[in-house]
Amino acid sequence: MKKVAVILAGSGVYDGSEIHEAALTLLYLDKVKAEIKCFAPDKNQLHVINHLQGEPVEGENRNVLLESARIARGEVLPLPELKVDDFDAVIFPGGFGAAKNLCTFAVDGPDCEIDGDVNRIVNDTVEKKKVLGVICISPVIAARALKDSGRKPKLTVGTDKGTMEALEKLNAEPVEARVNEIVVDENNKIVSTPAYMLGPSIAPVAEGIEKLVNKVIDMA
Amino acid sequence: MKKVAVILAGSGVYDGSEIHEAALTLLYLDKVKAEIKCFAPDKNQLHVINHLQGEPVEGENRNVLLESARIARGEVLPLPELKVDDFDAVIFPGGFGAAKNLCTFAVDGPDCEIDGDVNRIVNDTVEKKKVLGVICISPVIAARALKDSGRKPKLTVGTDKGTMEALEKLNAEPVEARVNEIVVDENNKIVSTPAYMLGPSIAPVAEGIEKLVNKVIDMA
Repeated sequence: MKKVAVILAGSGVYDGSEIHEAALTLLYLDKVKAEIKCFAPDKNQLHVINHLQGEPVEGENRNVLLESARIARGEVLPLPELKVDDFDAVIFPGGFGAAKNLCTFAVDGPDCEIDGDVNRIVNDTVEKKKVLGVICISPVIAARALKDSGRKPKLTVGTDKGTMEALEKLNAEPVEARVNEIVVDENNKIVSTPAYMLGPSIAPVAEGIEKLVNKVIDMA
Repeated sequence: MKKVAVILAGSGVYDGSEIHEAALTLLYLDKVKAEIKCFAPDKNQLHVINHLQGEPVEGENRNVLLESARIARGEVLPLPELKVDDFDAVIFPGGFGAAKNLCTFAVDGPDCEIDGDVNRIVNDTVEKKKVLGVICISPVIAARALKDSGRKPKLTVGTDKGTMEALEKLNAEPVEARVNEIVVDENNKIVSTPAYMLGPSIAPVAEGIEKLVNKVIDMA
Protein backbone atom coordinates (compact mmCIF):
# COMPACT_ATOMS: atom_id res chain seq x y z
CA MET A 1 0.00 0.00 0.00
CA LYS A 2 1.58 3.27 -1.14
CA LYS A 3 1.57 6.20 1.26
CA VAL A 4 0.80 9.54 -0.31
CA ALA A 5 0.74 13.03 1.20
CA VAL A 6 -1.64 15.54 -0.41
CA ILE A 7 -0.84 19.21 0.23
CA LEU A 8 -3.85 21.50 0.42
CA ALA A 9 -3.91 25.31 0.35
CA GLY A 10 -7.43 26.26 1.48
CA SER A 11 -10.75 25.46 -0.20
CA GLY A 12 -11.87 27.28 -3.33
CA VAL A 13 -10.26 27.95 -6.70
CA TYR A 14 -9.61 31.68 -6.24
CA ASP A 15 -8.04 31.72 -2.76
CA GLY A 16 -7.42 28.07 -1.89
CA SER A 17 -7.06 24.63 -3.41
CA GLU A 18 -9.13 24.05 -6.53
CA ILE A 19 -11.90 21.89 -5.05
CA HIS A 20 -12.46 19.62 -8.06
CA GLU A 21 -8.74 18.96 -8.48
CA ALA A 22 -8.30 18.17 -4.79
CA ALA A 23 -11.35 15.89 -4.65
CA LEU A 24 -10.29 14.09 -7.85
CA THR A 25 -6.78 13.58 -6.46
CA LEU A 26 -8.30 11.92 -3.38
CA LEU A 27 -10.69 9.89 -5.54
CA TYR A 28 -8.05 8.35 -7.78
CA LEU A 29 -5.67 7.74 -4.87
CA ASP A 30 -8.44 5.97 -2.96
CA LYS A 31 -9.33 3.91 -6.06
CA VAL A 32 -5.82 2.43 -6.15
CA LYS A 33 -6.00 1.94 -2.36
CA ALA A 34 -3.24 4.38 -1.50
CA GLU A 35 -2.98 5.43 2.13
CA ILE A 36 -3.71 9.17 2.01
CA LYS A 37 -2.79 11.88 4.50
CA CYS A 38 -3.66 15.54 3.88
CA PHE A 39 -1.55 18.46 5.08
CA ALA A 40 -1.82 22.25 4.94
CA PRO A 41 -0.04 25.23 6.46
CA ASP A 42 -1.56 26.58 9.70
CA LYS A 43 -1.58 30.26 8.70
CA ASN A 44 -3.92 32.89 7.31
CA GLN A 45 -4.77 32.86 3.63
CA LEU A 46 -3.35 35.72 1.53
CA HIS A 47 -6.96 36.93 1.31
CA VAL A 48 -10.55 35.74 0.98
CA ILE A 49 -12.15 35.94 -2.45
CA ASN A 50 -15.91 36.25 -3.02
CA HIS A 51 -16.19 33.36 -5.51
CA LEU A 52 -19.33 34.76 -7.12
CA GLN A 53 -17.80 38.12 -8.04
CA GLY A 54 -14.11 37.21 -8.04
CA GLU A 55 -13.26 40.12 -5.73
CA PRO A 56 -11.40 40.15 -2.38
CA VAL A 57 -13.58 40.48 0.72
CA GLU A 58 -12.33 43.35 2.87
CA GLY A 59 -11.67 42.57 6.52
CA GLU A 60 -12.26 38.81 6.33
CA ASN A 61 -9.55 36.32 7.27
CA ARG A 62 -9.54 32.55 6.89
CA ASN A 63 -6.99 30.00 8.05
CA VAL A 64 -5.52 27.71 5.37
CA LEU A 65 -5.53 24.62 7.60
CA LEU A 66 -9.14 25.12 8.73
CA GLU A 67 -10.43 25.72 5.20
CA SER A 68 -8.45 22.75 3.88
CA ALA A 69 -10.26 20.63 6.48
CA ARG A 70 -13.45 21.21 4.46
CA ILE A 71 -11.96 19.28 1.55
CA ALA A 72 -10.34 16.67 3.82
CA ARG A 73 -13.48 16.13 5.95
CA GLY A 74 -11.54 17.14 9.06
CA GLU A 75 -8.56 14.87 8.39
CA VAL A 76 -5.74 17.33 7.74
CA LEU A 77 -2.48 17.91 9.60
CA PRO A 78 -0.24 21.00 9.88
CA LEU A 79 2.50 21.03 7.25
CA PRO A 80 5.44 20.91 9.74
CA GLU A 81 4.28 17.40 10.73
CA LEU A 82 4.93 16.06 7.23
CA LYS A 83 8.11 13.99 7.26
CA VAL A 84 8.86 12.97 3.67
CA ASP A 85 10.53 9.74 4.89
CA ASP A 86 7.08 8.50 5.95
CA PHE A 87 5.69 8.71 2.40
CA ASP A 88 6.20 7.24 -1.06
CA ALA A 89 4.87 10.30 -2.87
CA VAL A 90 3.65 13.88 -2.40
CA ILE A 91 0.95 15.52 -4.55
CA PHE A 92 0.05 19.21 -4.83
CA PRO A 93 -3.40 19.92 -6.34
CA GLY A 94 -3.76 23.36 -7.95
CA GLY A 95 -5.95 26.41 -7.47
CA PHE A 96 -4.83 29.97 -6.79
CA GLY A 97 -4.21 28.99 -3.16
CA ALA A 98 -1.17 27.03 -4.31
CA ALA A 99 0.23 30.25 -5.79
CA LYS A 100 -0.98 32.49 -2.94
CA ASN A 101 -0.65 30.50 0.27
CA LEU A 102 2.13 27.97 -0.48
CA CYS A 103 4.29 30.45 -2.39
CA THR A 104 3.77 34.03 -3.58
CA PHE A 105 3.79 33.30 -7.32
CA ALA A 106 0.32 34.84 -7.88
CA VAL A 107 1.68 38.17 -6.63
CA ASP A 108 5.42 38.07 -7.42
CA GLY A 109 5.71 35.78 -10.45
CA PRO A 110 9.13 34.13 -10.87
CA ASP A 111 10.56 36.33 -8.07
CA CYS A 112 8.24 34.61 -5.61
CA GLU A 113 8.98 33.50 -2.06
CA ILE A 114 8.09 29.97 -0.99
CA ASP A 115 6.76 28.64 2.32
CA GLY A 116 9.62 27.07 4.27
CA ASP A 117 7.88 23.75 4.85
CA VAL A 118 6.79 23.53 1.21
CA ASN A 119 10.38 24.18 0.13
CA ARG A 120 11.69 21.45 2.46
CA ILE A 121 9.03 18.95 1.38
CA VAL A 122 9.62 19.42 -2.37
CA ASN A 123 13.40 19.20 -2.03
CA ASP A 124 13.27 16.18 0.29
CA THR A 125 10.83 14.43 -2.03
CA VAL A 126 13.10 14.84 -5.04
CA GLU A 127 16.39 14.20 -3.22
CA LYS A 128 15.09 11.07 -1.51
CA LYS A 129 13.79 9.77 -4.87
CA LYS A 130 10.17 9.77 -3.78
CA VAL A 131 7.62 10.81 -6.42
CA LEU A 132 6.22 14.33 -6.76
CA GLY A 133 2.88 15.07 -8.45
CA VAL A 134 2.06 18.69 -9.34
CA ILE A 135 -1.30 19.73 -10.78
CA CYS A 136 -2.47 22.90 -12.57
CA ILE A 137 -0.41 25.89 -11.32
CA SER A 138 1.52 23.81 -8.73
CA PRO A 139 4.45 23.13 -11.08
CA VAL A 140 5.57 26.69 -10.22
CA ILE A 141 6.00 25.48 -6.62
CA ALA A 142 8.22 22.63 -7.76
CA ALA A 143 10.24 24.95 -10.00
CA ARG A 144 10.67 27.58 -7.27
CA ALA A 145 11.72 25.00 -4.68
CA LEU A 146 14.23 23.38 -7.05
CA LYS A 147 15.41 26.64 -8.64
CA ASP A 148 18.96 26.49 -7.28
CA SER A 149 19.32 22.70 -7.27
CA GLY A 150 20.68 22.45 -10.83
CA ARG A 151 17.99 19.86 -11.64
CA LYS A 152 16.05 21.72 -14.38
CA PRO A 153 12.73 19.86 -13.81
CA LYS A 154 10.54 19.14 -16.85
CA LEU A 155 7.04 20.43 -16.06
CA THR A 156 3.77 21.28 -17.76
CA VAL A 157 1.35 24.11 -17.07
CA GLY A 158 -0.56 23.47 -20.31
CA THR A 159 0.00 26.12 -22.98
CA ASP A 160 0.00 29.43 -21.11
CA LYS A 161 2.95 31.40 -22.48
CA GLY A 162 3.37 33.69 -19.48
CA THR A 163 3.51 30.84 -16.98
CA MET A 164 5.81 28.85 -19.26
CA GLU A 165 8.22 31.81 -19.39
CA ALA A 166 8.05 32.04 -15.61
CA LEU A 167 8.99 28.36 -15.37
CA GLU A 168 12.03 29.03 -17.56
CA LYS A 169 13.09 31.89 -15.28
CA LEU A 170 12.83 29.45 -12.39
CA ASN A 171 15.31 27.15 -14.20
CA ALA A 172 12.67 24.60 -15.18
CA GLU A 173 11.85 23.24 -18.64
CA PRO A 174 8.21 23.93 -19.59
CA VAL A 175 6.55 21.32 -21.82
CA GLU A 176 3.20 21.89 -23.55
CA ALA A 177 0.48 19.36 -22.81
CA ARG A 178 -3.26 18.96 -23.22
CA VAL A 179 -5.65 18.85 -20.28
CA ASN A 180 -6.00 15.06 -20.39
CA GLU A 181 -2.24 14.46 -20.66
CA ILE A 182 0.62 14.20 -18.19
CA VAL A 183 4.28 15.14 -18.48
CA VAL A 184 6.75 12.82 -16.77
CA ASP A 185 10.21 13.91 -15.64
CA GLU A 186 11.82 10.49 -15.19
CA ASN A 187 15.11 11.85 -13.78
CA ASN A 188 13.54 13.86 -11.00
CA LYS A 189 10.47 11.62 -10.62
CA ILE A 190 8.01 14.47 -11.11
CA VAL A 191 4.63 14.10 -12.85
CA SER A 192 2.52 17.10 -13.88
CA THR A 193 -0.83 17.75 -15.61
CA PRO A 194 -2.46 21.05 -16.68
CA ALA A 195 -5.95 20.50 -15.15
CA TYR A 196 -7.77 23.86 -14.88
CA MET A 197 -4.82 25.74 -16.41
CA LEU A 198 -6.69 24.53 -19.50
CA GLY A 199 -10.03 23.09 -18.33
CA PRO A 200 -12.60 23.70 -19.66
CA SER A 201 -14.60 21.35 -17.42
CA ILE A 202 -14.26 18.70 -14.76
CA ALA A 203 -14.37 15.55 -16.96
CA PRO A 204 -11.21 16.24 -19.01
CA VAL A 205 -9.49 17.59 -15.88
CA ALA A 206 -10.33 14.28 -14.19
CA GLU A 207 -8.74 12.32 -17.06
CA GLY A 208 -5.44 14.12 -16.59
CA ILE A 209 -5.50 13.78 -12.80
CA GLU A 210 -6.33 10.07 -13.01
CA LYS A 211 -3.31 9.57 -15.29
CA LEU A 212 -1.12 11.61 -12.94
CA VAL A 213 -2.17 9.66 -9.86
CA ASN A 214 -1.68 6.30 -11.58
CA LYS A 215 1.76 7.32 -12.85
CA VAL A 216 2.79 8.63 -9.42
CA ILE A 217 1.75 5.31 -7.85
CA ASP A 218 3.52 3.34 -10.61
CA MET A 219 6.77 5.20 -10.03
CA ALA A 220 6.55 5.07 -6.21
CA MET B 1 -28.09 16.82 -24.26
CA LYS B 2 -29.82 16.49 -20.89
CA LYS B 3 -30.14 19.60 -18.74
CA VAL B 4 -29.54 19.02 -15.05
CA ALA B 5 -29.80 21.42 -12.11
CA VAL B 6 -27.52 20.72 -9.13
CA ILE B 7 -28.63 22.25 -5.83
CA LEU B 8 -25.79 23.25 -3.50
CA ALA B 9 -26.00 24.21 0.18
CA GLY B 10 -22.63 25.78 0.97
CA SER B 11 -19.17 24.19 0.84
CA GLY B 12 -18.01 21.73 3.49
CA VAL B 13 -19.49 18.55 4.96
CA TYR B 14 -20.44 19.95 8.40
CA ASP B 15 -22.17 23.18 7.42
CA GLY B 16 -22.59 23.03 3.63
CA SER B 17 -22.61 20.62 0.71
CA GLU B 18 -20.32 17.61 1.10
CA ILE B 19 -17.51 18.65 -1.21
CA HIS B 20 -16.62 15.19 -2.56
CA GLU B 21 -20.26 14.36 -3.27
CA ALA B 22 -20.84 17.66 -5.05
CA ALA B 23 -17.65 17.41 -7.13
CA LEU B 24 -18.40 13.79 -8.05
CA THR B 25 -21.94 14.73 -9.11
CA LEU B 26 -20.48 17.37 -11.45
CA LEU B 27 -17.82 14.91 -12.69
CA TYR B 28 -20.22 12.16 -13.71
CA LEU B 29 -22.71 14.64 -15.21
CA ASP B 30 -19.93 16.18 -17.28
CA LYS B 31 -18.72 12.73 -18.37
CA VAL B 32 -22.12 12.01 -19.95
CA LYS B 33 -22.11 15.51 -21.44
CA ALA B 34 -25.07 16.80 -19.47
CA GLU B 35 -25.61 20.56 -19.46
CA ILE B 36 -25.13 21.49 -15.80
CA LYS B 37 -26.40 24.53 -13.91
CA CYS B 38 -25.75 24.97 -10.18
CA PHE B 39 -28.12 26.76 -7.81
CA ALA B 40 -28.11 27.65 -4.12
CA PRO B 41 -30.18 29.79 -1.74
CA ASP B 42 -28.95 33.36 -1.24
CA LYS B 43 -29.12 33.38 2.56
CA ASN B 44 -26.90 32.91 5.60
CA GLN B 45 -25.85 29.43 6.60
CA LEU B 46 -27.36 28.06 9.84
CA HIS B 47 -23.84 28.43 11.24
CA VAL B 48 -20.16 28.04 10.39
CA ILE B 49 -18.40 24.89 11.61
CA ASN B 50 -14.66 24.69 12.25
CA HIS B 51 -14.02 21.57 10.16
CA LEU B 52 -10.91 20.61 12.13
CA GLN B 53 -12.64 20.53 15.51
CA GLY B 54 -16.26 20.02 14.44
CA GLU B 55 -17.42 22.95 16.57
CA PRO B 56 -19.46 26.04 15.59
CA VAL B 57 -17.47 29.27 15.18
CA GLU B 58 -19.02 32.02 17.30
CA GLY B 59 -19.84 35.28 15.53
CA GLU B 60 -18.97 34.13 12.00
CA ASN B 61 -21.54 34.19 9.20
CA ARG B 62 -21.26 32.81 5.69
CA ASN B 63 -23.69 33.06 2.79
CA VAL B 64 -24.84 29.78 1.24
CA LEU B 65 -24.73 31.10 -2.34
CA LEU B 66 -21.23 32.58 -1.97
CA GLU B 67 -19.80 29.44 -0.39
CA SER B 68 -21.49 27.24 -2.99
CA ALA B 69 -19.68 29.31 -5.63
CA ARG B 70 -16.43 27.73 -4.35
CA ILE B 71 -17.62 24.32 -5.51
CA ALA B 72 -19.16 25.69 -8.71
CA ARG B 73 -16.11 27.82 -9.64
CA GLY B 74 -18.30 30.93 -9.60
CA GLU B 75 -21.06 29.48 -11.77
CA VAL B 76 -24.01 29.32 -9.39
CA LEU B 77 -27.40 31.03 -9.50
CA PRO B 78 -29.87 31.96 -6.74
CA LEU B 79 -32.46 29.25 -6.14
CA PRO B 80 -35.51 31.39 -7.10
CA GLU B 81 -34.14 31.51 -10.67
CA LEU B 82 -34.50 27.74 -11.04
CA LYS B 83 -37.52 26.97 -13.22
CA VAL B 84 -38.02 23.21 -13.27
CA ASP B 85 -39.52 23.39 -16.79
CA ASP B 86 -36.05 24.33 -18.08
CA PHE B 87 -34.49 21.07 -16.85
CA ASP B 88 -34.71 17.31 -17.35
CA ALA B 89 -33.51 16.49 -13.85
CA VAL B 90 -32.56 17.98 -10.49
CA ILE B 91 -29.88 16.53 -8.18
CA PHE B 92 -29.24 17.33 -4.51
CA PRO B 93 -25.77 16.31 -3.22
CA GLY B 94 -25.57 15.70 0.54
CA GLY B 95 -23.63 17.11 3.46
CA PHE B 96 -25.05 18.63 6.65
CA GLY B 97 -25.78 21.82 4.70
CA ALA B 98 -28.61 19.99 2.94
CA ALA B 99 -30.15 19.32 6.37
CA LYS B 100 -29.26 22.73 7.83
CA ASN B 101 -29.62 25.28 5.02
CA LEU B 102 -32.17 23.69 2.64
CA CYS B 103 -34.38 22.36 5.42
CA THR B 104 -34.06 22.21 9.21
CA PHE B 105 -33.83 18.40 9.53
CA ALA B 106 -30.47 18.52 11.35
CA VAL B 107 -32.11 20.53 14.13
CA ASP B 108 -35.78 19.48 14.04
CA GLY B 109 -35.75 15.92 12.64
CA PRO B 110 -39.02 14.84 10.98
CA ASP B 111 -40.75 18.01 12.26
CA CYS B 112 -38.43 20.09 10.09
CA GLU B 113 -39.29 23.15 8.01
CA ILE B 114 -38.21 23.31 4.38
CA ASP B 115 -36.97 26.23 2.27
CA GLY B 116 -39.82 27.48 0.08
CA ASP B 117 -37.87 27.28 -3.17
CA VAL B 118 -36.57 23.80 -2.34
CA ASN B 119 -40.13 22.67 -1.62
CA ARG B 120 -41.36 24.10 -4.93
CA ILE B 121 -38.50 22.59 -6.90
CA VAL B 122 -38.90 19.07 -5.47
CA ASN B 123 -42.66 19.06 -5.97
CA ASP B 124 -42.45 20.51 -9.49
CA THR B 125 -39.76 17.97 -10.42
CA VAL B 126 -41.90 15.02 -9.35
CA GLU B 127 -45.23 16.38 -10.63
CA LYS B 128 -43.81 17.28 -14.03
CA LYS B 129 -42.24 13.79 -14.28
CA LYS B 130 -38.70 15.09 -14.39
CA VAL B 131 -36.09 13.01 -12.55
CA LEU B 132 -34.93 13.73 -9.01
CA GLY B 133 -31.56 12.53 -7.66
CA VAL B 134 -30.95 12.71 -3.89
CA ILE B 135 -27.61 11.83 -2.34
CA CYS B 136 -26.57 11.04 1.26
CA ILE B 137 -28.91 12.89 3.69
CA SER B 138 -30.82 14.70 0.90
CA PRO B 139 -33.56 12.04 0.71
CA VAL B 140 -34.99 13.73 3.84
CA ILE B 141 -35.51 16.84 1.69
CA ALA B 142 -37.47 14.83 -0.87
CA ALA B 143 -39.51 13.15 1.87
CA ARG B 144 -40.26 16.45 3.63
CA ALA B 145 -41.27 18.18 0.41
CA LEU B 146 -43.55 15.30 -0.65
CA LYS B 147 -44.86 14.56 2.86
CA ASP B 148 -48.46 15.57 2.16
CA SER B 149 -48.55 14.54 -1.50
CA GLY B 150 -49.68 10.94 -0.86
CA ARG B 151 -46.76 9.68 -3.00
CA LYS B 152 -44.81 7.67 -0.37
CA PRO B 153 -41.43 7.96 -2.15
CA LYS B 154 -39.04 4.99 -1.89
CA LEU B 155 -35.68 6.35 -0.68
CA THR B 156 -32.37 5.18 0.77
CA VAL B 157 -30.21 6.76 3.45
CA GLY B 158 -28.09 3.63 3.82
CA THR B 159 -28.70 1.70 7.04
CA ASP B 160 -29.03 4.38 9.73
CA LYS B 161 -32.06 3.37 11.84
CA GLY B 162 -32.79 6.86 13.20
CA THR B 163 -32.85 8.48 9.78
CA MET B 164 -34.89 5.59 8.35
CA GLU B 165 -37.49 6.09 11.10
CA ALA B 166 -37.54 9.80 10.33
CA LEU B 167 -38.22 9.00 6.65
CA GLU B 168 -41.18 6.84 7.74
CA LYS B 169 -42.56 9.71 9.81
CA LEU B 170 -42.28 11.87 6.70
CA ASN B 171 -44.48 9.34 4.85
CA ALA B 172 -41.61 7.91 2.80
CA GLU B 173 -40.52 4.28 2.46
CA PRO B 174 -36.88 3.81 3.59
CA VAL B 175 -34.94 1.10 1.76
CA GLU B 176 -31.55 -0.18 2.95
CA ALA B 177 -28.69 0.05 0.46
CA ARG B 178 -24.92 -0.19 0.40
CA VAL B 179 -22.70 2.78 -0.39
CA ASN B 180 -22.07 1.67 -3.97
CA GLU B 181 -25.74 0.99 -4.68
CA ILE B 182 -28.72 3.09 -5.75
CA VAL B 183 -32.42 2.82 -4.96
CA VAL B 184 -34.80 3.67 -7.78
CA ASP B 185 -38.39 4.80 -7.22
CA GLU B 186 -39.78 4.20 -10.71
CA ASN B 187 -43.22 5.69 -9.97
CA ASN B 188 -41.95 9.01 -8.69
CA LYS B 189 -38.77 8.99 -10.80
CA ILE B 190 -36.49 9.45 -7.79
CA VAL B 191 -32.99 7.93 -7.50
CA SER B 192 -31.05 7.88 -4.21
CA THR B 193 -27.67 6.62 -2.96
CA PRO B 194 -26.23 6.60 0.61
CA ALA B 195 -22.79 8.15 -0.16
CA TYR B 196 -21.22 9.44 3.10
CA MET B 197 -24.22 8.27 5.17
CA LEU B 198 -22.10 5.11 4.93
CA GLY B 199 -18.74 6.06 3.44
CA PRO B 200 -16.15 5.15 4.50
CA SER B 201 -14.12 6.82 1.76
CA ILE B 202 -14.41 8.64 -1.54
CA ALA B 203 -13.95 5.70 -3.97
CA PRO B 204 -17.04 3.69 -2.90
CA VAL B 205 -19.02 6.94 -2.56
CA ALA B 206 -18.04 7.73 -6.16
CA GLU B 207 -19.32 4.35 -7.35
CA GLY B 208 -22.77 5.06 -5.91
CA ILE B 209 -22.88 8.60 -7.27
CA GLU B 210 -21.80 7.47 -10.74
CA LYS B 211 -24.64 4.93 -10.77
CA LEU B 212 -27.09 7.58 -9.55
CA VAL B 213 -26.07 10.09 -12.21
CA ASN B 214 -26.22 7.51 -14.99
CA LYS B 215 -29.66 6.32 -13.86
CA VAL B 216 -30.94 9.89 -13.58
CA ILE B 217 -29.77 10.58 -17.13
CA ASP B 218 -31.25 7.28 -18.40
CA MET B 219 -34.64 8.11 -16.92
CA ALA B 220 -34.64 11.76 -18.05
